[in-house]
Amino acid sequence: MDPIMSAVAGRATKSEIRELLKWTRRSDVISFAGGLPDASLFPIDELVRLSEQVLRTRGYHALQYGPTPGEPDMIEALVQHMRDYDEEADGNRICVTASSQQGLDLVSLLFIDEGSPIIVELPSYIGAIQAFSRSGADMRGVALEEDGIDLEGLGRVLNELDREGRRPRFIYVIPDFQNPSGVTMSVEKRRELIAIARARSIPIVEDSPYREVNFTGATLPSIWTLAGGEGVILLKTFSKMLFPGMRLGWIAAGQPWMDKLIMLKQSVDLCTASFTQFIVADYLREGRMRDTIARAIDCYRPKKDAMLAALGSAMPAGTRWSRPYGGMFLWVELPAGIGAESMFERAAGRGVVYVKGRQFHCDGSGAGTLRLNYSFPSVEQIERGIEILGAATAEELEAHAKAAATTAAPRTAGGPGASRPAATASLGEYPAR
Amino acid sequence: MDPIMSAVAGRATKSEIRELLKWTRRSDVISFAGGLPDASLFPIDELVRLSEQVLRTRGYHALQYGPTPGEPDMIEALVQHMRDYDEEADGNRICVTASSQQGLDLVSLLFIDEGSPIIVELPSYIGAIQAFSRSGADMRGVALEEDGIDLEGLGRVLNELDREGRRPRFIYVIPDFQNPSGVTMSVEKRRELIAIARARSIPIVEDSPYREVNFTGATLPSIWTLAGGEGVILLKTFSKMLFPGMRLGWIAAGQPWMDKLIMLKQSVDLCTASFTQFIVADYLREGRMRDTIARAIDCYRPKKDAMLAALGSAMPAGTRWSRPYGGMFLWVELPAGIGAESMFERAAGRGVVYVKGRQFHCDGSGAGTLRLNYSFPSVEQIERGIEILGAATAEELEAHAKAAATTAAPRTAGGPGASRPAATASLGEYPAR
Repeated sequence: MDPIMSAVAGRATKSEIRELLKWTRRSDVISFAGGLPDASLFPIDELVRLSEQVLRTRGYHALQYGPTPGEPDMIEALVQHMRDYDEEADGNRICVTASSQQGLDLVSLLFIDEGSPIIVELPSYIGAIQAFSRSGADMRGVALEEDGIDLEGLGRVLNELDREGRRPRFIYVIPDFQNPSGVTMSVEKRRELIAIARARSIPIVEDSPYREVNFTGATLPSIWTLAGGEGVILLKTFSKMLFPGMRLGWIAAGQPWMDKLIMLKQSVDLCTASFTQFIVADYLREGRMRDTIARAIDCYRPKKDAMLAALGSAMPAGTRWSRPYGGMFLWVELPAGIGAESMFERAAGRGVVYVKGRQFHCDGSGAGTLRLNYSFPSVEQIERGIEILGAATAEELEAHAKAAATTAAPRTAGGPGASRPAATASLGEYPAR
Repeated sequence: MDPIMSAVAGRATKSEIRELLKWTRRSDVISFAGGLPDASLFPIDELVRLSEQVLRTRGYHALQYGPTPGEPDMIEALVQHMRDYDEEADGNRICVTASSQQGLDLVSLLFIDEGSPIIVELPSYIGAIQAFSRSGADMRGVALEEDGIDLEGLGRVLNELDREGRRPRFIYVIPDFQNPSGVTMSVEKRRELIAIARARSIPIVEDSPYREVNFTGATLPSIWTLAGGEGVILLKTFSKMLFPGMRLGWIAAGQPWMDKLIMLKQSVDLCTASFTQFIVADYLREGRMRDTIARAIDCYRPKKDAMLAALGSAMPAGTRWSRPYGGMFLWVELPAGIGAESMFERAAGRGVVYVKGRQFHCDGSGAGTLRLNYSFPSVEQIERGIEILGAATAEELEAHAKAAATTAAPRTAGGPGASRPAATASLGEYPAR
């Protein structure tokens, strides 16, 4: 007779991205898999100085338990950071979290019962899918278009749920340089989404790790800010604009959610580390973030350009990809008939890894898609790696053509714009606005 | 029409301890409420040096995402620490956590479905009760005796569950210097508990934050080690023996639990902060922990003695308290008829706060009990604070006697040994073994 585990444990799965992380520590492999920032951006000297400053001046507080919503110094610094980037901000509507993954966990706890319908993009962030499915959500996917979530598709899903007599607990979107697709939601769509959600009293969960890392130097207004902070829960993190190794993020939300989020935060870890909160608060208060983000943009823009150029010269006809103008990822749709799963072994054998697209799809679609990260590898690695990927794709095509000569091999389409005619794509290029 | 929150959110409650934490930052209040270490123990100079050492030598890894089970350096250091303290240890059965509260959260996710029976001590740690009740556990309380959980009482509860056709998902115990009671489980009871749990295939969750902080300089064998790591999940933290402000703890568990715990950990925060893991790993590897713990013992033993002496001279007859030989807390049972809740306002008005005992009781008992912390206040504050507490108790007694002259006021008994005749107690004094 074995001890009994919970239904939650039964639904828990491994994230392949986390599994792939081990590749990033190997020097003989080019990894397009993780969502890792470029470590050369980490401000080591500043952190040495700030660690000492925090320990010497506030060590007794920094090493003690802190308040559950976060250190007041940190909350004040976050309010200022949000205002610097034109965000609606209010210290009473902020809770510091240990990463935005914890934000996703808390949102799952706040809203999801077993079988609760929620709406996610197709494709969507794998860590969110993992947290939501662990909580037993009934995820309904809505396709992405070049300018964000397909609002007509959203309407169809909402009507379908209406007919079932159910209302989704929330709509989860990543409007800026979406992970994994690189697609950005237009401002018009953000406004329409708010109107749709308000009319039906559905909260919007806006996951916004990449907003500030906008290669144009501008930012789009967040859904949170467009909605005046009403009806929206905003998840933020320093992992992409600064570094992930201190696990610091925050949630912005109004009532009645914030009170409950803080109670849930108490139950999951009591409070976030004060030591690292003070360090990042000082970093923000000394006015260093805008420069830091500018350096990240200067680092990632040429990498993105290098990847786009390499894809253009290396990938066989029929391959399509997105053209993000911020963030860390772009999205590839392989030529019809080729699966990203079967090709993975071929590419990995040659020292290149990526993330297979299917796991970003809550409905199991996306077999012919994959995600590429350009923030972690060097430009040289990008050029070499994409060449290898192109050769692997060509080989797969050839193998597929041989197989197709005897049997028919249907392809499951998926991902943004999958229904449009195959051609080198411009998904997520600067939207007209 | 309001958006819908989950059943989990409906069950989430505020911990009064977290609310009381704000008192600890006020200089005009003597707080016996929190479970805070003495900040004068924090090794500031060492941490300045180690922060720089980590950033200069391993900054790129320390600020990057790390593996979900923890940094290999940290896991190796934890194995060594456990062996130094005579614990069964194996790096493949360790997962680093952001505090032992996260351990409790992960255990809740691993085992508890809505309505799942679990067994907890009466009283038990409030943060555990909060996590378990959030997950919808059906908590069955078993009284504490001077030498730990009442095994006959446990047998009765298990038989009761048998008759209902149910098996508890786990038995949750804090064997060393229990929070809140200060009681320590005897080695004999640890062995018997293992046998009982094994016979019925019930996992034991052993929460062990205080084990190393043993005023005798020795340690008792943990349940984890007595069981050879089989059938036990051990929760550990650095919050009590080092400092809480980096939020670092770990779980030790065998299969099939560890795989699932790591998947769940991924879904709640991807990984623990690498930066602080490297700092504490270096602290451990440089062999500083035993000295650090010795200093904590030297700091807390006289505080505990001062509190016991002050209680002896200040508290009215009929008050009883435990006599811990480690940890941070002792437990007070007020004279019959007095409630810790009504007395709280009287004491707080005079500048002394404590935690009311009822919230440590999953069955709502414990009205006449309270928890006192002696690690955070100074000896002088302890002496002055307990004098105030004694006066407040005497006043309550007087008010109660006046009221009793007209009406009968029954008292709900609770806490360890509550059924024994009231007299100055020796709960948790060095057990005979």
